[in-house]
Amino acid sequence: MAAEIVNPRSDAGTHGADEPFDPAFALHRGGKMAVQATVPVRDKDDLSLAYTPGVAKVCSAIAEQPELVHDYTWTSNVVAVVTDGTAVLGLGDIGPSASLPVMEGKAILFKQFGGVDAVPLALDTTSVDEIVETVKRLAPSFGGVNLEDISAPRCFEIEKRLQEELDIPVFHDDQHGTAIVTLAALRNAAKLTNRTLGDLRAVISGAGAAGVAIAKFLLEAGIGDVSVADRKGIVSRDRDDLTPVKRELAELTNKANLSGSLESALAGADVFIGVSGGTVPEPAVASMAPDSFVFAMANPNPEVHPDVAHKYAAVVATGRSDFPNQINNVLAFPGIFAGALQVRASRITEGMKIAAADALAGVVGDDLSAEYVIPSPFDERVAPAVTAAVAAAARAEGVARR
Amino acid sequence: MAAEIVNPRSDAGTHGADEPFDPAFALHRGGKMAVQATVPVRDKDDLSLAYTPGVAKVCSAIAEQPELVHDYTWTSNVVAVVTDGTAVLGLGDIGPSASLPVMEGKAILFKQFGGVDAVPLALDTTSVDEIVETVKRLAPSFGGVNLEDISAPRCFEIEKRLQEELDIPVFHDDQHGTAIVTLAALRNAAKLTNRTLGDLRAVISGAGAAGVAIAKFLLEAGIGDVSVADRKGIVSRDRDDLTPVKRELAELTNKANLSGSLESALAGADVFIGVSGGTVPEPAVASMAPDSFVFAMANPNPEVHPDVAHKYAAVVATGRSDFPNQINNVLAFPGIFAGALQVRASRITEGMKIAAADALAGVVGDDLSAEYVIPSPFDERVAPAVTAAVAAAARAEGVARR
Repeated sequence: MAAEIVNPRSDAGTHGADEPFDPAFALHRGGKMAVQATVPVRDKDDLSLAYTPGVAKVCSAIAEQPELVHDYTWTSNVVAVVTDGTAVLGLGDIGPSASLPVMEGKAILFKQFGGVDAVPLALDTTSVDEIVETVKRLAPSFGGVNLEDISAPRCFEIEKRLQEELDIPVFHDDQHGTAIVTLAALRNAAKLTNRTLGDLRAVISGAGAAGVAIAKFLLEAGIGDVSVADRKGIVSRDRDDLTPVKRELAELTNKANLSGSLESALAGADVFIGVSGGTVPEPAVASMAPDSFVFAMANPNPEVHPDVAHKYAAVVATGRSDFPNQINNVLAFPGIFAGALQVRASRITEGMKIAAADALAGVVGDDLSAEYVIPSPFDERVAPAVTAAVAAAARAEGVARR
Repeated sequence: MAAEIVNPRSDAGTHGADEPFDPAFALHRGGKMAVQATVPVRDKDDLSLAYTPGVAKVCSAIAEQPELVHDYTWTSNVVAVVTDGTAVLGLGDIGPSASLPVMEGKAILFKQFGGVDAVPLALDTTSVDEIVETVKRLAPSFGGVNLEDISAPRCFEIEKRLQEELDIPVFHDDQHGTAIVTLAALRNAAKLTNRTLGDLRAVISGAGAAGVAIAKFLLEAGIGDVSVADRKGIVSRDRDDLTPVKRELAELTNKANLSGSLESALAGADVFIGVSGGTVPEPAVASMAPDSFVFAMANPNPEVHPDVAHKYAAVVATGRSDFPNQINNVLAFPGIFAGALQVRASRITEGMKIAAADALAGVVGDDLSAEYVIPSPFDERVAPAVTAAVAAAARAEGVARR
């Protein structure tokens, strides 16, 4: 009955006793988070206020006036971090339990950077209908829902249905977090090279959650043109093998209706955005327009190594912390939710996301350079700037409820 | 769109500005709990261990060896406090949102008294099937499930099905927590009056979650006899108006097959246990056997006022903190879960519950008196004693997994 518990000490999943101590496993032992009481429970009097009988009058008040739940419980500051474990980091479909270290990590980043409480909820189902109904049933306990590491195209439908059916923010970070930080970096790169977004043609490698969301968001923000390539090449209106999501993408993107390979689309393009994990050959990078931007965000191996990219591009960004210009979602999601929760927004609008990107770009300010188009996650100005911008945008767009 | 938010300041639910400041509302503002990181996230290096890329190897290890989830996430110490808001305190069916202050209170008591992390989950459904399937889908994220304030008889089926289908502890505290603390008090009361449980005949007023569970648990523990009365009188094998749960109760209890009123059953009885909220007339209390025990646990108004009970009974207990001998669930549930989680018990057995009651009774020790048959919730020996006893019982019963 009792399973053998082994303490892994290596990177490779082989857990021999003679292998070196691994700091990641050591740090994860016992998990990375806890719950704490924010009110005292020292004695009978405390207990009679925080629990029975005192709590009864608070319950009654909420029963009578439901919106008081936001004032007198933690729900208005707590986000459910929901996954089904189907698209975890670069690991893929590893299931709900194995995804939990990422969800806990996300939860502590919410707290650390945004002051937002978050609870990891890894669901034991991969059915779209079941995920939607489960989250709906959980909704009274949360102020918002952060969807995480759910595979495409299921993630699109899950998010859309939850946004339609719930009156709290529902945000799939793999889509919109990435898109927001990308837009912020792109705005600053364009500024650095005296161009506007409208002057740029971008090519995105990858038509999963991030690629689709970035394409749509850049169009929303006014980019000149964008094309998206999946494994079979450029998503064009001539292709007959497209899923409904990619079919929609074909209608929205690729003005010239380019077809063929990713490499061919890069000829003369101003921006490369990699969210695929493939490798782009150097000649294709060389074929891009002058003053190009290469955002090669695959982890741990960027689609174009920065050393190669720098030979041709004016601005280079990656997803890695050990190169300049890290496109890191943690720059966005804590402030996005903090701002939305602060004003009890009923949803996160396109305007709020654009405000977040602009605020993030604005933090760079006069320090803008080719090596600094996006701030560090540890820049303490980031979360407050994003929070304030998102809250203001929510008010301006009429989705704030206080 | 924006609802008017009023800050309640009175007990009565009328929130006039001229009413006195209410400490319960003041304490509840913003909720009573928060999440905290237990690992540092101060810089790039911290982030690369707690989040990407370091977290990936921990996820991979769990994917390969699923039981490692207990070592490397917080799940093994976190309990879902699940309700549908249908039977909240004495308030009844006030719905999920209005129940949240109680669930948060429960969560902080778990932490304060048992060191157990707990997350309030108030579900937006009252369907038995939907609650069961929702909790099953949530199970990978939790080490245990505490069901709370779910109305009878639905609570019985929900708990039974979840216990059958999950391999983590599922415990409906309104049933078993109350039963465990009652048994502890009863053991000490019997000891004080030189009797054993087998010498006692008890009458329970109330056939809801608590009444049913107490009856079954006292039988399990070896009480002489027990009868249960609902609003229509004593549950007997002659009644034809019984639900399936009460039908089972009629088979298990009431050896003499008494019928009629609660009052008639009390004649000559040794123990009264009130979990109903009604009022027992003084002559019925007077008709009990010598050296009787009156445990009148309704809140805020005990079924028998202690001043009346003391005229006839050898030991008097209530659910209130302002009288001696408070039967309070917080004496049990934190230690029960702490003990079960400590050894990764697959369930909470009858033996573990009896061990908890005995440990709780044992804390009183030589200080036993008519005014002290059960310890105070703030007695720091309580939770460690219950935790150790429950863990040991789990090992002895073969349900421990480490």
